[in-house]
Amino acid sequence: MDSWALLSVSDKTGLVELARHLRDEQGLKLLATASTARHLMDNGFEVATVESLTGFGEILDGRVKTLHPLIYGGLLASSKLDHQAQRETMGAPDIRVVVVNLYPFERRWQEGLTGAELIEEIDIGGVSLIRAAAKNNERVAVLVDPGQYEPYMDGLHDEAARRRLAVEAFRHVAYYDAIIAEALSEPGEQPDLLALAGRRQGTLRYGENPHQTGAFYAFAPRVGFADAQLLQGKALSFNNYADADTAVKLARDLSGPAAVVVKHQTPSSTAFGETILDAYQRAHDADPVSIFGGVVAVNRPVDRALAAKLTEIFLEVVVAPAVEPDAAAILAKKKNLRVLVMSFEPHPSLDFKGILGGVLVQPADAIQKPLGAWRHVAGPAADLEALSRDLDLAWKTVARVKSNAIVVVKDGVTLGIGGGQTNRIDAARQALDRAGDKARGAIVASDGFFPFGDVLKLCGERGVAVVVEPGGSLRDQESIDEANEAGITLIMTDERHFRH
Amino acid sequence: MDSWALLSVSDKTGLVELARHLRDEQGLKLLATASTARHLMDNGFEVATVESLTGFGEILDGRVKTLHPLIYGGLLASSKLDHQAQRETMGAPDIRVVVVNLYPFERRWQEGLTGAELIEEIDIGGVSLIRAAAKNNERVAVLVDPGQYEPYMDGLHDEAARRRLAVEAFRHVAYYDAIIAEALSEPGEQPDLLALAGRRQGTLRYGENPHQTGAFYAFAPRVGFADAQLLQGKALSFNNYADADTAVKLARDLSGPAAVVVKHQTPSSTAFGETILDAYQRAHDADPVSIFGGVVAVNRPVDRALAAKLTEIFLEVVVAPAVEPDAAAILAKKKNLRVLVMSFEPHPSLDFKGILGGVLVQPADAIQKPLGAWRHVAGPAADLEALSRDLDLAWKTVARVKSNAIVVVKDGVTLGIGGGQTNRIDAARQALDRAGDKARGAIVASDGFFPFGDVLKLCGERGVAVVVEPGGSLRDQESIDEANEAGITLIMTDERHFRH
Repeated sequence: MDSWALLSVSDKTGLVELARHLRDEQGLKLLATASTARHLMDNGFEVATVESLTGFGEILDGRVKTLHPLIYGGLLASSKLDHQAQRETMGAPDIRVVVVNLYPFERRWQEGLTGAELIEEIDIGGVSLIRAAAKNNERVAVLVDPGQYEPYMDGLHDEAARRRLAVEAFRHVAYYDAIIAEALSEPGEQPDLLALAGRRQGTLRYGENPHQTGAFYAFAPRVGFADAQLLQGKALSFNNYADADTAVKLARDLSGPAAVVVKHQTPSSTAFGETILDAYQRAHDADPVSIFGGVVAVNRPVDRALAAKLTEIFLEVVVAPAVEPDAAAILAKKKNLRVLVMSFEPHPSLDFKGILGGVLVQPADAIQKPLGAWRHVAGPAADLEALSRDLDLAWKTVARVKSNAIVVVKDGVTLGIGGGQTNRIDAARQALDRAGDKARGAIVASDGFFPFGDVLKLCGERGVAVVVEPGGSLRDQESIDEANEAGITLIMTDERHFRH
Repeated sequence: MDSWALLSVSDKTGLVELARHLRDEQGLKLLATASTARHLMDNGFEVATVESLTGFGEILDGRVKTLHPLIYGGLLASSKLDHQAQRETMGAPDIRVVVVNLYPFERRWQEGLTGAELIEEIDIGGVSLIRAAAKNNERVAVLVDPGQYEPYMDGLHDEAARRRLAVEAFRHVAYYDAIIAEALSEPGEQPDLLALAGRRQGTLRYGENPHQTGAFYAFAPRVGFADAQLLQGKALSFNNYADADTAVKLARDLSGPAAVVVKHQTPSSTAFGETILDAYQRAHDADPVSIFGGVVAVNRPVDRALAAKLTEIFLEVVVAPAVEPDAAAILAKKKNLRVLVMSFEPHPSLDFKGILGGVLVQPADAIQKPLGAWRHVAGPAADLEALSRDLDLAWKTVARVKSNAIVVVKDGVTLGIGGGQTNRIDAARQALDRAGDKARGAIVASDGFFPFGDVLKLCGERGVAVVVEPGGSLRDQESIDEANEAGITLIMTDERHFRH
């Protein structure tokens, strides 16, 4: 009895070599859908068409080609004797290899196709062939991507190999359908079922630590780091990506030239400047220790002057929306410095936190309440407009520091950052100790409310002028009383920004 | 011309009510696969069978039932005139509603089914019907779950509604196939395509902050928090889950009765004890400030004595492998306390970090190198066996503290924890300041190497006896020299444990 390979591909790459292998090495006869059959015949192969087997021509502009019991009888018959007998009785071919590429839905979506035209790119028949073949992996090998052909031809054709191909096939169609669901749905849904599709981008040497494997999976359509350009330097590591993400999310939210320095996924200093060079210089000087080996994001193109400055110390990564050509030449001298160019345009993204047995999902945090919505609750009235630049820097920075977080700001630069603390007073002490005498007249921002009056008391001792915090504690009055006593302007934002 | 509803369900819940709606409200004729048709006929409906339409009986033990051009011509014909003409010419029915439940692959997998029996649970025909109907959502409504029937019957039957059903359908099959890929694959793979399937469990009031939505998606098969039992208290919040995860991952790794206190996803104190009560009491006393509103994990069943102690202060969550009945009665008096019982058995889990445009994925961190593999590199030789309990507590705790992290341990309890710092000397200062005079003779552990000799110098000043760190810095010699000078036993583990 003859055995068959069924081929139906949109991408003809490598098809001829594969068909030769199937015919000559495996002794299979070839069965194909119309355009695949034509391509093979043009290359000298003898091919039976699906149409000639089923007696059904393609209908509905190709929407129905292979959905026929003779095909599926051939694909799904197991090795059991009665299955094989039924298959023979009905005249279905003994199909042992299936080669299918799906319509390129994701690519068309990325290209901007929408509506009925995009819907037309949803492959029905191909997915059904792949799934049936994968189910029957006991007998059938399934190939879904030209990248698989060579390893398949070179490898063993045993049941374990077919099982691995089946896993890849189910993952392939799961990914395909998750992308379709994503493309057709409204953004921001948190449906009952999570079907998350990512495409591995590049190779990470390892994860957060050398003994962990790590991978970056890009979502479709490609934005953010999935669409970034590495101008120079080694590929980003797991921690580089995470640090750069923290830095860019903060830098893009700051108006006016600004620089953000991140170490261990938390900002160690941030600053505004007259120019982007000025902003970087001020951020550098605000914490010249932590910046060593750090990740820097600037929200303006890197110019010549900044490039020269950046190369003076050891940095892991510089991220910017652009790098001017003469600046690139200067950066190039520092071969190991990774320079990443990417869009700083805001677009929504998701946070994930893996926990035992599942994953927590949320939209990434963003400031919802602008300065105009804040409340002045104690101490002298302040000219918020005049202070708006510093308030902006303090509030946006503290929202990105690991909780509990306190940030001290004056004259457009962080003077002290305290974070990662399990109680708030320690975060305040850390930030204010780092600011030292400069805290006099400064702004202090807190990512969460004050459980007691102790932070305001400490701020009073250090001469702080303005404190910004969410408010909402049972003991807010303690903080209000301390602020009034110390003459501190106390502002409540009614919005917490924990980040863990 | 007649229009049709096609029904093929394994779960008959709500089927009769839906069929009545389809027939009486929408005027559709009913077409069904064999067992669904029988159920409907038994309930007094007039039903055409798929078999009678196609002239093909079910073959291969039901593996092929509906995969026929007459069905797919009916499902996939768009509203275009030539499509409808082709459909009529071939004698395919005008199908406007599709109701399909898939074989319960996930449930069978969870029940422990494997091999060929599990493979048999992979639905081929049902998925094809669903996908074809969802593609043609311009004309066809698709229902995949009895939970959708009521809202469907009560809702509008317009194109927008059909589009939403199509999105749910694609997500449903994407989820289904991702679970199949997961079930058939080897654990721990990081394939080119990520197809992650989660099922939303319960409802989170919000995410990390009140202005963020949040969801917990459970992975299959259910383990960890997906399999936990909430004995009392309100549902866990996003932050409760994240904190409890940190606490359990540490507590389960500690041998002997141990308690872990977590605030803001980082341990604030940990302790061993003679009994589990003793362990908790010691962890409590080690940082009585941070524990307020904290999450506590204990690695032994909660007994009466511990329950009484736990109810003395405000805690958010207590997690344990079990709660004894008389202890449960005591905890019940503290109505707002969440008490979670779950397995503390180790099983692999994944970390995810959402970044702009994608997600970073890695296996969750775990200690790879045991104490026996560590190297003594400077200072007096120490009896590691005698110190093993404290070394174990220090090293496992520092691995779970947010980086940069330093932990001081003596006599089975943390004396000071410093974490979330952007440089290491600050983490050391923080931990040692918290430990105060008790640091004399203590063990200090660091999650990363020392870039300079400054931490060892500080440890010398504070009378620390043993320092454990990964080693691997260009300037390890500085630390070795300082250790030798100060008479500190310096141990290198050759394994970093950053956690961000």
